[in-house]
Amino acid sequence: MRVASVSEKVLNGVAAAAGVVIGPAFVYREGQPETAARAAAAPEEELARFEEARRRAENELNALAERADDQGREILTAHQLMLQDPELQNLVEAAIRDGQPAEEAVRTATEQFAAMLEALDDEYLRERAADVRDVGRRLVAALTGRTVGVVLQRPSVVVARDLAPTDTIGIDRSLLLGIVTEQGGPTSHTTILARSWGIPAVVATAGVLEAASDGMTVALDGDAGEVVLDPGAETRSRYEAAMARAREQAERDRAEASLPAETPDGVRVELAGNAGSPGEVAFAMEKGAEGIGLLRSEFLFMGRSTAPTEEEQYQAYAEALRNARGQRVIIRTLDIGGDKDVPYLGLAKEENPFLGVRALRLCFRRPELFQTQLRALLRASVHGRLAIMFPMVSGLSDLRRAKEALAEARRSLEAEGHPVADRYEVGIMVEIPSAALLADHLAREVDFFSIGTNDLVQYTLAVDRGNPELTEMYQPYHPAVLRLIDRIVQAAHAAGKWVGVCGEMGGLPEGALLLLGLGVDELSMAPALLPRIKRLVRSTPAAEARAVARECLELGTPEEVLALVGPLVRRVG
Amino acid sequence: MRVASVSEKVLNGVAAAAGVVIGPAFVYREGQPETAARAAAAPEEELARFEEARRRAENELNALAERADDQGREILTAHQLMLQDPELQNLVEAAIRDGQPAEEAVRTATEQFAAMLEALDDEYLRERAADVRDVGRRLVAALTGRTVGVVLQRPSVVVARDLAPTDTIGIDRSLLLGIVTEQGGPTSHTTILARSWGIPAVVATAGVLEAASDGMTVALDGDAGEVVLDPGAETRSRYEAAMARAREQAERDRAEASLPAETPDGVRVELAGNAGSPGEVAFAMEKGAEGIGLLRSEFLFMGRSTAPTEEEQYQAYAEALRNARGQRVIIRTLDIGGDKDVPYLGLAKEENPFLGVRALRLCFRRPELFQTQLRALLRASVHGRLAIMFPMVSGLSDLRRAKEALAEARRSLEAEGHPVADRYEVGIMVEIPSAALLADHLAREVDFFSIGTNDLVQYTLAVDRGNPELTEMYQPYHPAVLRLIDRIVQAAHAAGKWVGVCGEMGGLPEGALLLLGLGVDELSMAPALLPRIKRLVRSTPAAEARAVARECLELGTPEEVLALVGPLVRRVG
Repeated sequence: MRVASVSEKVLNGVAAAAGVVIGPAFVYREGQPETAARAAAAPEEELARFEEARRRAENELNALAERADDQGREILTAHQLMLQDPELQNLVEAAIRDGQPAEEAVRTATEQFAAMLEALDDEYLRERAADVRDVGRRLVAALTGRTVGVVLQRPSVVVARDLAPTDTIGIDRSLLLGIVTEQGGPTSHTTILARSWGIPAVVATAGVLEAASDGMTVALDGDAGEVVLDPGAETRSRYEAAMARAREQAERDRAEASLPAETPDGVRVELAGNAGSPGEVAFAMEKGAEGIGLLRSEFLFMGRSTAPTEEEQYQAYAEALRNARGQRVIIRTLDIGGDKDVPYLGLAKEENPFLGVRALRLCFRRPELFQTQLRALLRASVHGRLAIMFPMVSGLSDLRRAKEALAEARRSLEAEGHPVADRYEVGIMVEIPSAALLADHLAREVDFFSIGTNDLVQYTLAVDRGNPELTEMYQPYHPAVLRLIDRIVQAAHAAGKWVGVCGEMGGLPEGALLLLGLGVDELSMAPALLPRIKRLVRSTPAAEARAVARECLELGTPEEVLALVGPLVRRVG
Repeated sequence: MRVASVSEKVLNGVAAAAGVVIGPAFVYREGQPETAARAAAAPEEELARFEEARRRAENELNALAERADDQGREILTAHQLMLQDPELQNLVEAAIRDGQPAEEAVRTATEQFAAMLEALDDEYLRERAADVRDVGRRLVAALTGRTVGVVLQRPSVVVARDLAPTDTIGIDRSLLLGIVTEQGGPTSHTTILARSWGIPAVVATAGVLEAASDGMTVALDGDAGEVVLDPGAETRSRYEAAMARAREQAERDRAEASLPAETPDGVRVELAGNAGSPGEVAFAMEKGAEGIGLLRSEFLFMGRSTAPTEEEQYQAYAEALRNARGQRVIIRTLDIGGDKDVPYLGLAKEENPFLGVRALRLCFRRPELFQTQLRALLRASVHGRLAIMFPMVSGLSDLRRAKEALAEARRSLEAEGHPVADRYEVGIMVEIPSAALLADHLAREVDFFSIGTNDLVQYTLAVDRGNPELTEMYQPYHPAVLRLIDRIVQAAHAAGKWVGVCGEMGGLPEGALLLLGLGVDELSMAPALLPRIKRLVRSTPAAEARAVARECLELGTPEEVLALVGPLVRRVG
C-alpha cells in the first residue's frame, strides 16, 4: 500500500485506454453556459438576435463537419436538421413574441420540444430529444458569444462528467494529453475515442469532477485506472519514469516500423491499417502499415445533404491510392443501413437494422448509387494498387450480382473512353455465417477474402455488438467463431486465394496470435495497434501459434480459449 | 379458355391458402360503423355515455383475450393499455366539454392522437397510431351498440379489403369457410391465418369488394387463385367435384393418421405437432401427431398485466401433458424479447431485438421469472412424458447455466416435498449458428436437439425474417443452412442423441425431404401439415432422400437445391 503525499489526492476509476501521462487539467463542466438574466428587447430585435445566432450555430456546425469523423458527421447532420426544424422555430418565435429574451425563449422552446419527444417513451425519439437539447445549448452559447464543446488552448488532461460525441467533435487531438471522466464505461464514447486515438483514459472515476479544478496537475494511469490530483514528488517521478519507458517504446516502435512482420520461423504476415478517409491512409502508412486492409467509403456519404458525385468520389479514392505510395488499398463499397441517419438516402427505419437492408443489399436496390461508386473506383484504379471489396455478401448470388454491376461500370467507362487499370483485385468481406460456410464456392470467384470479425461474431452468436446489456456475450474467442474462421482460411487456400482480417480481433494480441495460427495472410487494424502486433508476430513462432490454434478449435468455451492463449501473449508483453 | 356463365363473375387473385370451397359471402367493410349525426346531450351525460362505452369495450377485449392466440393477446393488451391512456382520455373529455356528442368526441380525439403519433415519422409509433384508431372504432361501436370485428352467424366466405389481427381475433373458426381479400399478399396476416387454420384463401383480388354483396354465393379456389361470384351451374359442379376430392383426401388423411411415418425402406421418422396452448395439443393429437415437438409457453405470459403464477403455469403444463395421452410433449421455456409488448416484464426497446436480450438471456436476468416456470414444469412432470427445451442457447455456458437453474428448481421442490418425475428429457433449440458449430460439445450435455430453422436461417443469412423487403433473401434451402443442419445431426448421432426440427422447414415438402435425407429423427409442424408430410415420408425411400441431400450439400445456391429437390416432391404430390 502506497502512502499518498499530504497534498495529493488519489482516485480510482476504470482503466479505459492504455498509457500514462501528467498534465494540467481542463475541467469541462456540462450544462448550459451561464447567462446573466437580461431583460428582453423588443420582440423584433430578439427575433433578429435569434436569427443571427442560428446562422452562427450553422456555421459552427459546418466548420466542425470538416474536422469530424464519420460518426461525428452523422451527429452534426442531425443537429443541422434540428436547427432548421420548423416546429422548434415556431416554439422559439412564440416565446419571443410572449416577451421572453431570445436566450430564455430558446431554453423554453428546446426544453418543451425535448420533453414532448421524451414523453413518447420511445428509444429512437429519446435520442432525438438529446439532439434538441444539444442544439439548444449551441444556440444559447451563440447568443452569448460562446461555443459548445471541449476547446483546448494548450496540452491538457480533460476532466469531465462524461464526453458525448457532440463534446469531442471539435477537439484538437494534438493538445489532448489524456481523459478522466466521472461516468462512462468500457464501451462509452470516451473509451472508444481514447483507444482509437491512443490517448490514456480513466473512466468511472467517482468524485473527480468535484475534486479537480482548471489548471490543477493531473497524473493518470490508463493501465491501472489510477488518477492522482496534485501529485507529490514521489508520484511525479513514478509517473515520469513510466512516461519515459513509454517514449522509449514508441521510439523502438518507430525503429521497427520498417522491419518485416515475420515470425522467428520465417512466416511472413502482412500488417495493414484500417482507415476512414484518404488522410487516415497517410497516417496508417506513417505508422508502418504495409497497405490498407480496409478503407471505409462511408466518409464520403455522411454529414451531407446529397449523395457525393462520381467526380468527388473519384478524387477521394485517387487521393487514398496516392497516399498509399504503391501499396494495396482495399476500398470497401458503401456499408450503410437503417441504423444510420443519412437523410438523402431515405432509409427505412427497420425493426432489426443489423439484419436488414444494408450495404450490398442497399446498393442492389439503388443501382444509380452503386454504379456511381463503382465507376469512381474504377476510374481511380489507375492511381495505385486498388482492391475493391463488397460487404455483406451472403452467398454466390450476391457476389455474382455485385461482380456483374462492376462489369457494367467498366463497360460504361470503356465506352466513354475513360482509362481503367488492367489489374485490380476484387474480394469480399466474409462476415455473414452463410458466406463462411460456403467459402469453398465463393473462393473460386474472388481474388481474396477479408474476414469482418465484428459482424461475423455478431451474427454467429446472435448478439448485437452495440447492445450494452450483452457486452459479456460478444465473444470473438468463441470456439464457434474460430471454427468458422478456420473453415474460411482452408477454403481460400485450397483455391489459391489469400485471406485477411479487418475486424477488431486482428488488433488484439490474443486475436492476432490465433489468426496467425489459423493461417491468415493479412491483418488490418487501427494504425496505433500495429507496433504491438508486429512485436507479437516477430516473437511468436508460427508453428507454435498453429499448434495452439488447432487445440483451441477443439475447446468448448471462450474462457478455455483465453486461458490457453493469454499466457503466450503476456510472455511477449 | 373457359367461358363464364352469363351471370357469374370470375376474378383472379393470388393463391394464398390451399383448398376449394363454395359458400355465402360475408362482406366485411372496414371503417367506422355509420352513425346518424345526433345532437349532444349535456356534457355530463355524454361523459357518462363515454365511460359506459369504455367499460363495455374493456369487457369485449377481456372476452376476446380468452379466445385469442398469442399474437391476438398481444394486440389486445396494446388496446387495453390504449383504452386507459390518460392522454386519449383528456382529449375525449375536452371535446365533450366543447359540446360534441361522445361518438364525435371519440372520433375527433382518436384521430388527433393518431395523427400526432403518425406525424413523428417513426415506424414504432405509426403502429401505435393504428392501435389508437382501432380503439376508437371499438369505442364508437360500443357507443352505438355494435361490436368490431368479423362476427359470423352462419358458415360463410369472408370477403374483405384486408383482415388485420384485430378483425379476426374473435372470429368463429367453425363458421369460416374461406377468405377472399382485395389486398394482402403471401406474408400478410390473412394468408398466415388461413394457412394455419387450413382455410382456403385468395388474396390481392382486385375489385372483389365492390362486386360482392352479403349472402351472394362465392366459389373460391385457393390453389389456383380463382374467385367466382354467383357461379353458374357448370362452375358449381366443377367446384363441388373438387370439394368432394378434397373430402376424400381428408378421409384418407384421417385413415392414415394412425399409420406410422415410415419410409418404404423402413426408416421411421417421428411426426409431431407444434402447439401454442394445451388446447392445441389436443388438436394436434387428433390430427395424428405422435407427440408435441414444440409447445410454446408464451401463451401463458401474453395479454395480461402480471406474470402467471407457478400454480397457473403448473395447471396449464399438466393439462398439456394429459392432452398428449402419454406421448412426449416438448415444452419450450419462455422465448420472448424486446420486440414483444409485455408491459409487466418492462422489456427495454432495443436497436436489434432479434440480436438482443431475449429468451434464455432474459430468463437469466430474471431469476424469479425463470425459477417459477421451471418449478411449474417440474411439478407438471408427473402428469405425462415431459421434455424441457431451452431456446436461444449460444454455447456451453448458456446450457450449463440453464441446467443449473433447473437443478436449483428441482432441489427447492424436493426440499418442499413436491413430487417430481424421475425421468424427463432436457434439450435445446439449435437456432444460433454458434450452437450448430459447437454441436459436438453440446450434444454430450443434452438429451436431444430441436433445430429451430426459422431463427437458424435468419442468423445464418443475417436476414430478419420479419422484414418484408428481404422476403426473397430468407432462404431455408440455402446450402449454408443445409451444411449447418448436417453438422448438427452428425454431432447428435455421434453422441447417441436424437434430433428434431420444429421450424417451418419441416412442414414444407421440400424441407421435409431434405431433413429426412440429412438424418433428422423427428419433424414437428403445424398439425394441418402432418398428413401431406406423412404421405411424403411413406412414399420416399430414405436412401434416395439421403443421396439427394448429400448432393445438395455440395451445391452453391438455393436455386440449385430447389431444382434438384422440387421434382422429387412433385412426384409425390
